[in-house]
Amino acid sequence: MTIGLTKEQKSYAKESAGALMRDDFLYVWWDQTVDEVIAHIRRYGEEQKFIHYLYVVDETGALHGVISLRDVVRRNQEEVVADFMTTNILFIPADLDQEEIARVMKKRDLLTAPVVDSDGRLLGVIHLDDVLDVVQEETTEDFHKMAPVITLGKNIKEASPFFLYRRRIGWLVILVFMNLFSGAGIAYFEDTITASIALVFFLPLLVDSGGNAGSQAATLMVRSLATGDITMRDWMKLFGKEVVTAGLLGATMALAVSVIGVYRGGMDIALIVSMTMILVVLAGSLLGMSLPFLLNKFNMDPATASAPLITSLADITGVLIYFSIANWYLGL
Amino acid sequence: MTIGLTKEQKSYAKESAGALMRDDFLYVWWDQTVDEVIAHIRRYGEEQKFIHYLYVVDETGALHGVISLRDVVRRNQEEVVADFMTTNILFIPADLDQEEIARVMKKRDLLTAPVVDSDGRLLGVIHLDDVLDVVQEETTEDFHKMAPVITLGKNIKEASPFFLYRRRIGWLVILVFMNLFSGAGIAYFEDTITASIALVFFLPLLVDSGGNAGSQAATLMVRSLATGDITMRDWMKLFGKEVVTAGLLGATMALAVSVIGVYRGGMDIALIVSMTMILVVLAGSLLGMSLPFLLNKFNMDPATASAPLITSLADITGVLIYFSIANWYLGL
Repeated sequence: MTIGLTKEQKSYAKESAGALMRDDFLYVWWDQTVDEVIAHIRRYGEEQKFIHYLYVVDETGALHGVISLRDVVRRNQEEVVADFMTTNILFIPADLDQEEIARVMKKRDLLTAPVVDSDGRLLGVIHLDDVLDVVQEETTEDFHKMAPVITLGKNIKEASPFFLYRRRIGWLVILVFMNLFSGAGIAYFEDTITASIALVFFLPLLVDSGGNAGSQAATLMVRSLATGDITMRDWMKLFGKEVVTAGLLGATMALAVSVIGVYRGGMDIALIVSMTMILVVLAGSLLGMSLPFLLNKFNMDPATASAPLITSLADITGVLIYFSIANWYLGL
Repeated sequence: MTIGLTKEQKSYAKESAGALMRDDFLYVWWDQTVDEVIAHIRRYGEEQKFIHYLYVVDETGALHGVISLRDVVRRNQEEVVADFMTTNILFIPADLDQEEIARVMKKRDLLTAPVVDSDGRLLGVIHLDDVLDVVQEETTEDFHKMAPVITLGKNIKEASPFFLYRRRIGWLVILVFMNLFSGAGIAYFEDTITASIALVFFLPLLVDSGGNAGSQAATLMVRSLATGDITMRDWMKLFGKEVVTAGLLGATMALAVSVIGVYRGGMDIALIVSMTMILVVLAGSLLGMSLPFLLNKFNMDPATASAPLITSLADITGVLIYFSIANWYLGL
């Protein structure tokens, strides 16, 4: 009597409702009476691990509503299901992505939800505990991408050092090669550095500030995109807001370092360092907030915009901004 | 007939089962018959938003088991609840932390679970959808800590630039002052740099590599601690494993940069850079993997071990290691 779909289930996309749903549920026909429903539960209810709701279908298998076991207990025996079923329910299409399922079930406070095919026929039922598993796995993947490492897919306690090595080495080598550009930037401005060695004192501080502001912006975007708080459409508006926020951040930090600049290298250094700070924080922040959107646009995970990646990109930008301003200001 | 605890609920700790539980559930007495239970549901079932299970209590209110509405439909009318109730159920203590609740409910695939006081008396029922909300909020907090920003507590779309400024400036200024130490380190080794300016080319590459390996290690630990994959007890074992993993990573990266070192600055520079790389990656990784445990030890959130914080700490360490080796090797 239950709709056994275990075999067909395999044909659904990997992270879709069809793959996530269970087939251990009970359904009833819409023209059954309460008496018939009770007989039906007595007969078929045994194997079902979990029956909260009885889904109501017509003769074609199309889903029309739901009744609870409470309804069955409370209604008169001769009432027909179609007359008292709840019809205002959430239908989940079989091809809906699991992240979207998590979002709608969370929003509606649902513990279970029915899955239907394109003709509205009942296929299975999604349980929130399965969704919770999925959400936690996807979040862990996001964390791993932000580490950045290749997703482990297992408990770190069970991972061998060599397994961990292989998951980590790729990104580290990529970042080494990216940092060569920062090094090349510094080498390009060797004369500037030799002329004013005091500039090197502020180098880590300035380039890291760009990376730090960028990491903040990127992480906020990655998480907001994952929870559905923001969508791709919001980029423009958020970019405008980031200009203001990063401007305020840069100005505050420029003020802080200008004091140290005067103390360490005099007024010229202070001015160079302050101007650099504002531009570096602005550049890092806008880069950091935009990269997750850009990655998403090219069908990559926004979480790939990890702090170390942003830091490396901001380093290159920072070196160029810093020494260009110094060159220009010192007239080298 | 329901146990109304709305007022008392306020006295439970903020993130405990007591604060999370609902009081819209039905309970029955263990000596009731199926007939009496049905009459009970007909009378009191109305207001309950959600009845999957009927919790069974004795005359003191102590929880003994659970029956499902399916049991009610299938059992004979004169059977007594205590004779067929399921007693193998999960009791959640009212003071259990919400993260732990998420873990046990996830492990047992539960959609609801009863909360009891220290005498085993039924207080309320936890619903998995509320747990999911909590898990998502806590994960968002972790992301924000790793950004690092002060948790927004609202959709970023609704946050003003000045609100975002205030959540971000604190950490940025702290990191600026930490980076002063890196700058001071560089300034201290000014003579070394002047003697061999080629060293500066490798500076961003080396110090960032320590930070990157450290970020990987820290992020893996933060997430594993949050999901319960690892606990505080595992630090020692994981530290040993990290020594091996980081050794492999450092050796590989040293090999990569030694080639560039020979090309850019000759054999001496290549050797200095390679030795530094191994030590910097080892130091960064061990720092990164240990910091979340250390923070947890002092009752701070492990997620405070953000990539930018690790990067700043690794920068200081990296500068000291790099120029100390250079000084020693070049005999300065």
